[in-house]
Amino acid sequence: MRVLILGGDGYLGWPTAMHLSAAGHSVAVLDNGAKRQWERDLGIEPLLPIASLSERVDVWKTLSGSAIRIFHADLCEYDQVESVFREFTPASIVHYGEQPSAGFSMMDHRRAAMTQTNNVIGTLNVLWAMRHAVPYAHLVKLGTMGEYGTPNIDIEEGFIEIEHKGRRDTLTFPKQPGSFYHLSKAHDSLNIHFTCRVWQLAATNLNQGVVYGIDTDETVQDPRLATSFHYDEIFGTVLNRFCVEAVAGVPLTVYGKGLQKRGFLNIRDTLQCVKLSIESPAKRGEYRVFNQFTEVFSVNDLAQLVARQSSLLGLKTEVRNIENPRLEAEEHYYNPVHSRLTQLGLKPRLLSDVLVESMLKTIQTHSARVKPDHMLPSVRWAGK
Amino acid sequence: MRVLILGGDGYLGWPTAMHLSAAGHSVAVLDNGAKRQWERDLGIEPLLPIASLSERVDVWKTLSGSAIRIFHADLCEYDQVESVFREFTPASIVHYGEQPSAGFSMMDHRRAAMTQTNNVIGTLNVLWAMRHAVPYAHLVKLGTMGEYGTPNIDIEEGFIEIEHKGRRDTLTFPKQPGSFYHLSKAHDSLNIHFTCRVWQLAATNLNQGVVYGIDTDETVQDPRLATSFHYDEIFGTVLNRFCVEAVAGVPLTVYGKGLQKRGFLNIRDTLQCVKLSIESPAKRGEYRVFNQFTEVFSVNDLAQLVARQSSLLGLKTEVRNIENPRLEAEEHYYNPVHSRLTQLGLKPRLLSDVLVESMLKTIQTHSARVKPDHMLPSVRWAGK
Repeated sequence: MRVLILGGDGYLGWPTAMHLSAAGHSVAVLDNGAKRQWERDLGIEPLLPIASLSERVDVWKTLSGSAIRIFHADLCEYDQVESVFREFTPASIVHYGEQPSAGFSMMDHRRAAMTQTNNVIGTLNVLWAMRHAVPYAHLVKLGTMGEYGTPNIDIEEGFIEIEHKGRRDTLTFPKQPGSFYHLSKAHDSLNIHFTCRVWQLAATNLNQGVVYGIDTDETVQDPRLATSFHYDEIFGTVLNRFCVEAVAGVPLTVYGKGLQKRGFLNIRDTLQCVKLSIESPAKRGEYRVFNQFTEVFSVNDLAQLVARQSSLLGLKTEVRNIENPRLEAEEHYYNPVHSRLTQLGLKPRLLSDVLVESMLKTIQTHSARVKPDHMLPSVRWAGK
Repeated sequence: MRVLILGGDGYLGWPTAMHLSAAGHSVAVLDNGAKRQWERDLGIEPLLPIASLSERVDVWKTLSGSAIRIFHADLCEYDQVESVFREFTPASIVHYGEQPSAGFSMMDHRRAAMTQTNNVIGTLNVLWAMRHAVPYAHLVKLGTMGEYGTPNIDIEEGFIEIEHKGRRDTLTFPKQPGSFYHLSKAHDSLNIHFTCRVWQLAATNLNQGVVYGIDTDETVQDPRLATSFHYDEIFGTVLNRFCVEAVAGVPLTVYGKGLQKRGFLNIRDTLQCVKLSIESPAKRGEYRVFNQFTEVFSVNDLAQLVARQSSLLGLKTEVRNIENPRLEAEEHYYNPVHSRLTQLGLKPRLLSDVLVESMLKTIQTHSARVKPDHMLPSVRWAGK
């Protein structure tokens, strides 16, 4: 299948490109290098040195024999998007091409507006270009579980049947996003759903939990295939950050009480979920939502797990509850449904001591690159 | 009270400015003239000749003795917004400053993206500028009943209590907007709600029905105070368009079966609702949603009413059902709640034969300016 990966230079985009290429798909990546620019602007680097996109593709070609085509294009430029779609004629479009950080979106008005423009207009251009150039293609869009917030009822997969004053309807699940980034994803979801109704586009929205992990079957084949693993407050996710804090010998920084619960998944399961989604596509006019995570943990659960494993490696690890820079419920009900990807065949790789140990050891080999001052939160949701 | 009206040059913005000025408030209007530019680009004109904003303000000053201050500024330019807020220090900000047409937003990818950028980023800048410059101000934002679509349950005012699997929560009412314009309003609502939670802003979202009418107590005082009454397919609302079609002697063009039901209100009631909202403001941190309409009609109801009244005036009026250019349910349940503005004291002016007759007569005095070919739909939601 011809698969175009938008944001194919990123933490998830690049491993997905290799994974689908390894599975025999004909893969192209589209990227404008924006994420690397945002990192430079903020003085942030991924933990592992990252090769250029063209070098990555060259190494992958040498190792696997499979070519991955590169399109340098900006999703916010409509003509570029339509032109790539016409040239590559993808059957599936996997869309990771967005500003991915809640913290970044809360830094200031400029970055808030940039996040919503980049994400919402970029996705809008993808939808219009699909309509005009590849109306039969299937869009697989990376959403987030953060669109739902933490309601006091079970979270369903995108839709909920509501009985109200003696009548019934199945409607979109109400959204309570917690940052301008999460809001941009909720806006995308409404836009995508509309175009499935009005233009009969086919789309799958993957409302993903928090991803952890460094390695995939493909990244481990050569150091130049490594993915962009972040541990900083802006682009780093919580378990990844805890592991780096443990190796750096600084306290694991739990925001607030640490009772916040979220859905989590291994980066390898992200690739598995995307592959399952493109290989069992939505029909024309269909808008599917899958909740994409494998386990629910509290932040404290993860801190304790990392503390335990790092002490077995001889590291002295302290867990410290710090003032929560975010505005979020710290004690709440959380029971999201996540059965549709399992029904498609997902075999979860659950979080284990072994995985955490392996992450810690990989991080130790790169510990000289860790900048401990990049891990403390500086962006506050409210206040000055 | 110091009231700043964003989009104060428009169909509703300008009459609101005069109405609040007449009531003793200290009023300023902000506008960048974008709507007049969009009209020029499309070769569209309002039915009545419209004076420049500065002339309107001068005439109003002469007639009423009250000054209305003008700020020429673009909501999409953050620094301009913050600077106006700091200079005028409004207690209330009434926000009409958006691209207001569903049809415009569906014309092409450029106008779809422009609508969402203009509306969503403009509102985002308003929110950030409130946070930084006037955190105690009350935002009164014009939303639309079109955010809800036509679900098979009663539409509540912004929020709905859901019981699900034995648990309960009160959550935002699910949205099914029917155009990129309506989607932009739904995006705004989520953004505004978030900033009320996180920054303790105070906001009232007026989910307004379809407005009709030409005259208000203030516009009738001088022809140079007239408001921008549209009857074209892009900026004209349905009852206004039917009245002009009747005067022009062309068929009243009902889209599809005409069984679509919507909430409607008189332009004078829009002014009343906004006045009630600013005079009973939301508290800090409060996000209120009022469904702002006074009556529900089907499109056929309105066509019949206009046909009946115009025949009494000796006009030969035909009602014609044409292919629906929009994608919308034509037979559906519709029972939206609209009690909160009534509780605040709204005294509705219901649609009457007399009002329609008065509109028809006003239109007759300007009938030489009517361009009948501007009323037939050319923008299609789907297809080529």
